[in-house]
Parts: sequence; structure tokens; C-alpha cells
Amino acid sequence: MASLAILGGSSSQPLAYRIAKGLRTEYIRIETRKFPDGEKYARIHGNVEGKSIVLVQSMYHRPDEYLMEYFLIVDTLKDLGAKKVIGVIPYFAYARQDHRFNPGEILSLKTVFKLIKDVGTDELYVIDMHRHRMGDELMKSIGLPTHNLTAMRLLGRYALDRFRLEDPVVLGPDEEAEQWARIAAEEIGAEYVCLVKRRISDREVETRPRRELDLRGKDVLIVDDIVSTGGTMVNAVTIALKQGAKRVIAACTHPILVENALVKVLEAGAEALIGTDTVPSPISYVSVAPVIIDALRHLA
Amino acid sequence: MASLAILGGSSSQPLAYRIAKGLRTEYIRIETRKFPDGEKYARIHGNVEGKSIVLVQSMYHRPDEYLMEYFLIVDTLKDLGAKKVIGVIPYFAYARQDHRFNPGEILSLKTVFKLIKDVGTDELYVIDMHRHRMGDELMKSIGLPTHNLTAMRLLGRYALDRFRLEDPVVLGPDEEAEQWARIAAEEIGAEYVCLVKRRISDREVETRPRRELDLRGKDVLIVDDIVSTGGTMVNAVTIALKQGAKRVIAACTHPILVENALVKVLEAGAEALIGTDTVPSPISYVSVAPVIIDALRHLA
Amino acid sequence: MASLAILGGSSSQPLAYRIAKGLRTEYIRIETRKFPDGEKYARIHGNVEGKSIVLVQSMYHRPDEYLMEYFLIVDTLKDLGAKKVIGVIPYFAYARQDHRFNPGEILSLKTVFKLIKDVGTDELYVIDMHRHRMGDELMKSIGLPTHNLTAMRLLGRYALDRFRLEDPVVLGPDEEAEQWARIAAEEIGAEYVCLVKRRISDREVETRPRRELDLRGKDVLIVDDIVSTGGTMVNAVTIALKQGAKRVIAACTHPILVENALVKVLEAGAEALIGTDTVPSPISYVSVAPVIIDALRHLA
Amino acid sequence: MASLAILGGSSSQPLAYRIAKGLRTEYIRIETRKFPDGEKYARIHGNVEGKSIVLVQSMYHRPDEYLMEYFLIVDTLKDLGAKKVIGVIPYFAYARQDHRFNPGEILSLKTVFKLIKDVGTDELYVIDMHRHRMGDELMKSIGLPTHNLTAMRLLGRYALDRFRLEDPVVLGPDEEAEQWARIAAEEIGAEYVCLVKRRISDREVETRPRRELDLRGKDVLIVDDIVSTGGTMVNAVTIALKQGAKRVIAACTHPILVENALVKVLEAGAEALIGTDTVPSPISYVSVAPVIIDALRHLA
Repeated sequence: MASLAILGGSSSQPLAYRIAKGLRTEYIRIETRKFPDGEKYARIHGNVEGKSIVLVQSMYHRPDEYLMEYFLIVDTLKDLGAKKVIGVIPYFAYARQDHRFNPGEILSLKTVFKLIKDVGTDELYVIDMHRHRMGDELMKSIGLPTHNLTAMRLLGRYALDRFRLEDPVVLGPDEEAEQWARIAAEEIGAEYVCLVKRRISDREVETRPRRELDLRGKDVLIVDDIVSTGGTMVNAVTIALKQGAKRVIAACTHPILVENALVKVLEAGAEALIGTDTVPSPISYVSVAPVIIDALRHLA
Repeated sequence: MASLAILGGSSSQPLAYRIAKGLRTEYIRIETRKFPDGEKYARIHGNVEGKSIVLVQSMYHRPDEYLMEYFLIVDTLKDLGAKKVIGVIPYFAYARQDHRFNPGEILSLKTVFKLIKDVGTDELYVIDMHRHRMGDELMKSIGLPTHNLTAMRLLGRYALDRFRLEDPVVLGPDEEAEQWARIAAEEIGAEYVCLVKRRISDREVETRPRRELDLRGKDVLIVDDIVSTGGTMVNAVTIALKQGAKRVIAACTHPILVENALVKVLEAGAEALIGTDTVPSPISYVSVAPVIIDALRHLA
Repeated sequence: MASLAILGGSSSQPLAYRIAKGLRTEYIRIETRKFPDGEKYARIHGNVEGKSIVLVQSMYHRPDEYLMEYFLIVDTLKDLGAKKVIGVIPYFAYARQDHRFNPGEILSLKTVFKLIKDVGTDELYVIDMHRHRMGDELMKSIGLPTHNLTAMRLLGRYALDRFRLEDPVVLGPDEEAEQWARIAAEEIGAEYVCLVKRRISDREVETRPRRELDLRGKDVLIVDDIVSTGGTMVNAVTIALKQGAKRVIAACTHPILVENALVKVLEAGAEALIGTDTVPSPISYVSVAPVIIDALRHLA
Repeated sequence: MASLAILGGSSSQPLAYRIAKGLRTEYIRIETRKFPDGEKYARIHGNVEGKSIVLVQSMYHRPDEYLMEYFLIVDTLKDLGAKKVIGVIPYFAYARQDHRFNPGEILSLKTVFKLIKDVGTDELYVIDMHRHRMGDELMKSIGLPTHNLTAMRLLGRYALDRFRLEDPVVLGPDEEAEQWARIAAEEIGAEYVCLVKRRISDREVETRPRRELDLRGKDVLIVDDIVSTGGTMVNAVTIALKQGAKRVIAACTHPILVENALVKVLEAGAEALIGTDTVPSPISYVSVAPVIIDALRHLA
């Protein structure tokens, strides 16, 4: 088996370093800086020839910059003789547009995914990537082996231990979050339910738990993939409390957190909002390093 | 011949619009905005099927953002049935690294150029792109037909007319600028010369005109491809004045202008610094639209 | 009379340099840079003791940064013995909130104006500053002598000459622009009119010229203080053309130009949009240096 | 006693919210956004008349923006009848220049401190603010009552508990850090020492612990006020390990963290780097809310 080395792009160096430590494998430093016209410079400080290389680069906040850096480094790794390039993109932006909702729109997921493959990526790992409607088929058609890992077990476990949840219930803030709620619930031995919208008349829509599940007096853990402006999470916290929940803890994998999302979620009544380090943030209490380490262990 | 339409990416909409007007051809608007996580959205508001499409997108200041947008739009154009995509990238960043000067460095020119081709560009136009040492061969090996237009005639003509230069001499600030000086000089019927460094002892280097060319009492027009921090231009202005020039006008195609470059050039004694709209700037007095219009006229 | 020196803050060095040249007076360079935590460093490279100092610093794009730099430099000038500090703030942001439109709102004009005075400004020059409703009284109450210069004569003259307007009419895009239209019209010997909104029924509002003024077959010059997103200007261009104008040229003092405003104005049918260098931009064809030079000449 | 309310500026809303919760007092929301020209808008959503108001606003990353917002809000609070305004500026930028090291330099600490007072601040709380040489006297001369709280006890306690340090030694990376090392050491019942530079010949400087203190086999906790580029901390970690330390934990109050400082500190051999939420960051494990709550309790 080719020897393994871990590299971190400028968006994810601390996470890459943790993964290398966890796998007890080589960490190769990448130097990056910018020229006055905004052009990125990068240099790999180590030997990659004949090795399997893991490049960790998340795509938060300035996705175009981090993606271009990813392309530049992967192409260089192949030029320098890397045997295999395994991309780890913990937060994958450009997953929204997996369909042309309106004529003339870009189909970003396809374009970005294709570029990632064409530039030399042999295998890809992402975390709690939200493939809407058509995403899965679109990605399959491009033919890059992709693994969608989940941080939901880590989040569930952390919330349970840190906040000493008692007999908790896990709540998904909408139907698409059912997948996340199920995993977190399983990990902590809890029941789960997700919120659904029900039309109750021509002019009224009601959001409520899909199944009959009594939240009265319960410790509720709400889980979702992303908290961006916080609207969906605020809504879920509000409903959980209206339904009689005793305590509410909110958790997400990717804490994008714009427009004071954190305070909004707390003001809505959540005791805390927790996230992971796929997106470095002040609430990145949980590192996804363990799930990446587990997934890569067969290579080390 | 397929009908022609001009589109402008978010870095170059005014220039694209001028080109469309000049060619009396269709201008198709692209709508762009960003999602809260920084992901770009774009939508083409017009029909591109079966047409030859010119996409104008310069790469100044935030090259990664503009380049990613370029990729997303070109791939979409091809999906939507465009017959041919002609890229116009007036300022082409990522031209510096056309060689690995140190082990492990990225070879950006190659990677970027390859991505531009692979994503669906059929032909490329750039302006006064500076290919150092190996650039030309590198680009040839990728096989994307590329035309390097020049703004030097426009700059020469503008300087002559606007500043009423009398019997001027054109000066290139270093040996690489000889190509630009020659063209500008030809246009305005002047002689030209470039500065060279000459080692005069172990510890001293002298910069002076390559050939014997008397600048005393002359109107001197200095031309270069880029003014970034302004160091090279300041040096050339200083030398021209030391050699006795009466007036000095400085000109460049790409006014990147960082770190107060404009004031530095003026403080050195230049009467003015002029540039083009490949990089929108307060000194973009000259539009490159005419040279692009000329180059594309056979398509219209 | 104390001797005079001109300084430019980092937002307006080229303009300050032009003013110094025009007044044939001393230009003192300010060095600026940032520490890694974003803190600004500045150093004045020249002697200011006993002198009247003109500090030019516009407030576009990053007004907070330029304003803080202004405060830091003015306080330093006074510490270093400057006899008098004359602020020139060509584009004055924070002029919008001159009244609390809703309870709890900041009254930015008052706070900013008070800080400018308290930090040591003895006299202030601004250009085409838009004082809404209460601005004038608010500013008077603070007691800092302020001169509101206008670039409208320069804009009118430039448009007339550059576009060879024939028997032109000047149009203000709304009632607040009447003041600007009047001045520009006077300069070029034209008539002027401004657009007003007229309610023609419960549900319809019509925008049309206030007075009967036939635009049919006319060259129309539209002038306003600011073009920001371009909405107001686009509307005015559209109406002028609907009323039969032959040619339309748009002009503004402060070309803030966000969200592709330039292309929008051109697409609406304007032949050109021109602006000044109070806000450096690709359409800053006109420098306000002459009006500032005139206003300061009594000090030189 | 006037009733108390807590407000958070846009840099510190989550921290302000925690303080309000801890004091069981009113939290008043401030709405903020920007106009297209970069001008800030803010509105206070609550009644402040006759109350003592605590405004929490840290000054990291974009200090000018946060400072201007602070000025605008404080002036508004006073206009709206607040009885007293207590500023809490957890990270205070502009503390560096407390002296003109070179002629013509700005004396930022004085200017900023004076503006904070003049705009209406009655009392100020900062955290581990580094007053160099002259800072204290400069601040005293301005006459704004200021309290410099410390996060060192919280950091010491957190490191001890979280990393189960055994018989630890606290190390200050330079002489100025002795004050922080002493407090942290006291809290966890440890000895402390700081590093000093000693000239051992004309050309050699040696950095070593000031007193004889054997680090061999010890758990070492390094504490400093700021980690910015990380140079000082990397140096201290390296020396501690050279001196034979068994484990090294690094801690700071203000994790500014630029240029990959976190990875550099880890690569040097620190087991972890921990910081507080004065500067929101991925290593802000410790909240300074408790020390602020304690300091403000007499007002609640």
C-alpha cells in the first residue's frame, strides 16, 4: 500500500493537522499567500511522490477562493507524482443548484463536481452534504467515488454528555432533516420526529411534528445539517417550546452563521447551539476529525 | 454563420456592453448574486442555443471569484446549446507561475489554462498578457487557440493626443517591456528604447537605457503591461527625469494599482498615469473595446 | 498668514496631490498600513507645526475605516502643532440619517458631524452633500463652519464639450435634484426641469416633468448627486426617452455604483454615465480638484 | 438604583446575550445593516430611558467598523435618555500606539480613548488590555474610569480541568507576560516563570526562563494576552519542550489568529491552544461572560 500523507488547504489546516495526528501519519505543510492582484500562491513543503495524498479543504465563507486553491494544489500533486489524491471537503458549498429551477440558471453542483474530478481527484469525502432532489443522480453520472460521512453521531453524543440530557427526543426541523434526526437519535437511544407543514385551510399552514410524539416536559435535541441565517432553526425551537418541551438544545454540522443567527436561536429559547469544525466558528465545539479518521483508517 | 451574442460576467459588464454596441450585436444580461455562505448564483437572461457566444470576464482583484463564475457560466452555455464559446479575459491573472521556481510550487498558468479549456472554452482572447519564460510553450501544449491582443496602440494614440506630446520617445521600464514599447512607438511614429540593468562592479548595479538614446529635452512616454505596486514605473520615471526628459507620461494596460501606486508614480514626477478598462480604475481613460471589437468583427 | 500644506488620507491621495499641484503648495505624504488585527497605522511624513493643514479624505465604500483614519490624523495634526485643520470630505457618507424616522434609530449625521468637530476640525468642505429634511439645522447646531461646494458646473461643462450637446435640456430625476439641475443648466445656458410624481388615481402614480417642457428631439443631460444602485437614474433615462429625447447623457457627482448600476443605466438607453473623482470609479472622468482649488485659494 | 439593560453591538451579540442571562437582566436587541455605500444603519429595539446601559462591543478584525458603530450607538443611547452608559470592549484594539515611536506617528490609544469618552461613555470595562510603556498614564489623563478585567483565572482553571494537568508550571512567553502568568498560576496553585532574552555574546541572544525553574518532566501551561501571527507563542512552546517539558498547553485571552497561527503553535508541539470569546474563533472554548458578570453584578 502506498504510504499516506495529509495536507490541509488554507481553509482547513487545523482540522487536517488533527487528522494526521489521529492517523499517526505524515502531515505536509502547504504555504499559501496572495500576490497584490489577488492571485494565490501555494507551495507544498514535502515529498508527495508515489504517495496517497489526502487534501482537506472546506468551502465555507469564500468558497471560490478555497475551491480554486483546491484545483491548483490537486493538479500540482499529480504533477509531482502523487499516486492517488483523496479530497476531503468537509463543508461542500455549491450543492444547492442541482437542478435548473428557472431557465438559464447555472447548474453549479454539476460544474463544480466535474471540475473536482477532472483536475485529478480520485476519491472524495464530504460531510452531511445535502443533496436535494436530483443531486445523487447528477453526481453518480460524473463518476467520482464520493462518500458522504455524517457528524450526527458526534453531535448527538456531545449534546447528551455535555448538557446531561435526560430521556431526550430528537427533532428534525423539516422533512429533509429526517435523515439527520434518525442517526442522532439512534446514537443516543432516543426517539425522533421531524416537523412537517400541513395545510389546514386555504390560507393557513401549520407546522407540527409529523407523528404523534409528545414533547411535553421533554429534553429536545434539534439537529440539522446547516444553520445559515437561522430561520429554520428558530422556527423549530419555537415550536418545540410551544409543544411543551422542557429544554431545547440546537445542533448542526455546518455552522455558517450569518446575520446574527446564533443570538436569534438563543433568543428563541434554545439553551445552546452547537456545531462542528467543518466551518470554523465560535460554536465549533465538536471536531469532525474522528469520523474522517475512521473513514481513512484503511489507507493508513 | 452562427449568430453572435455578447455576455459580460460580473467583473466586466460595462466593457461587454460596449463591445456589443460596437459590433451592433445582441447583448445578453447575466444576473448574479451570492448566497449567505458565499456561493455564487448566476442566471443567463436570454437564448443562447445555436449561437456563438462571447463571454467577457476580467480577472482583477478577486480572480478566484471571477474565474469560478467564468467556469460556471461557460459550462451552462454549453448545456444550453451554445454552438461555440469564445472567452475574452482582458486581464488574465495567474500568468506569473509558468514554471516551478522552487520545488513544490503550483504551476498556476497551466492549471488555470487547462480548466478554462476543459470547461468548454473554444477560443480565448486576452490583452497584453505577460508570458514569462515558458508561458508560450506551456499554453501551446494545452491546445486552446489563444489570441493575445494589445492595447499599446490605443495607449500611445491617447497619450499623444491628450497630452499633445511633441516629438516623443517611448521608453520600456525593463527588457520585458521592449515588446510593448515597440508597438506604442510604431503607432505614434516615435523611437523607443528600454531600460536595462548593467552590473558595473561587484556591488553596484546601474539601470540605464539599453541603446544610446538622448532623452534630454524630450517628451517621454513610458509604457508597461501592468502597474501593480508601482515600483518599476516609479524607477523608470525617475531615470527618465534624471536623463533630462522634459515631460514624462506613464501608461499601462492593466492598472491594478495597489498601495497608493498612482500617487507614487505622480510623486516621482510623471505628469499623468493612464490605463485601460481591463481593470476598472480611476485612471481607466482608455477602453480596450475597440481592439476587441476589431478582433471579433469576423464573427459578427 | 500661516503657510499651507495639503495631506491626503488613504481614500483620496491622488485627489489631494492634484489639489496641492494646483495650489502650488506643499504636499505632505501620509504613510498608512494595517496591523494583523485590522488596526490602522499612520504616520505623517513632514512638518506641520504652525501651518494650516488641508486633509482630504473621502468616505466611499469603507466609510468607517476612512472616518477613523480621519479622526486619528486630525488629532495627531493638532498634537503636532498644526495651527488650523481644514477637512475636505468630498463624498460625505452618513448624511442619510438626519432624523429618527423610527424610534431607536441612530442619528448618524449628528454623531459623525460632532465627532469630526470635536476631534479638532476647524472648518469643513464637502461636495454636493445631500442634506435631507433636517440636515442643515442639525449641522448648524453643532457649530462647525461647513462649505458645500458643487461639481455640477464641471459636470455640465464636461458633458457639453465631450458629447457636443446641441441646445440641451437639463433634467433632475426627482424634486430633490432640482438644486443640481438648476446649477448645471445655468452653466451651459440651458433650460432645466425635474421629474415629479403625480397621483393620477387611487392606484396609479405617474412620474413626469414638473413643468411643461418638451423633450422631443432634444439632447437631455440628467444630473443627480449620487448614483448608487442606479434605480432613480434608470427611471429618469427611461422617462426622458419616452418623452421623445434624441440623446440622453447621465451625470452624477458621486458614482458609488453598486449592483451593476453602470450597465443598468446604459441598458436603459443613456449614451454615457459620467461621474467625478469624489468616489474613484471607472467613470470618474471629471476631477473635483478645480472646485476645491478655487475654494482654498484664499488660504494659499 | 437605575434599572439595568444589556446591549450587544454587532461584534459581540452572543457574549452580550450570555451576560444578560447571567445577570438575569433585560437584553435589548440592536438591529444593524449596511447601506450600499457601506454606511452602517442601527436601531435599538427597546426602551433605554432612565436606565443604566451596558453596551458590549469587541474590536477584533474590523476595529474601525465596530468602533464607529459603538460611537453611533452610545450617542443615541444618551439622546434617548439613558442615565449611564457602561462600555464593555472585551478586545480593545488601538492599544499598541501609546507613544510616538517615530516622529509624525498617530497616537491611536489617546485618540480612540478620548473619542470613547467624549461620545458619552461613563465607565469602561476591558479585558487583559495590554498597556505598554505609557498607556496607563495616557489613559488616566483622559479621565474615563476604566477597569481592566482578566480572563487568566478562567483560562488557568479550564486548562487544569480539561487537560487534567498534573503539578503544572505556568510560563509567560516574555517579560510583559509575567503579569498574566502570575494570575493564572495563583488560580491553579502552581509556580510560574517567564522567558527573558539574555545576550550571551556580541552576536548571540539566548531566550530562557528568568529564574531557575526546572521544566523537565513538567506539564507546562503557557499564557499570553494575544496570539496574533503566533510567533511569540511558537517560540515559547519550542523552548519549553527543549527544556524537557512533558506536555505543553498554550492559552491566550484574545485569539486573533492570523496566518495559520493555530497550526503553527500545534506544529511547534503544543497539545492545544485555547482562547476566549473576546475574539470569536474556533478555539474560543472559554467565555469571558463570568468575569464580566461578576464585575457588573453591583449594578444589577
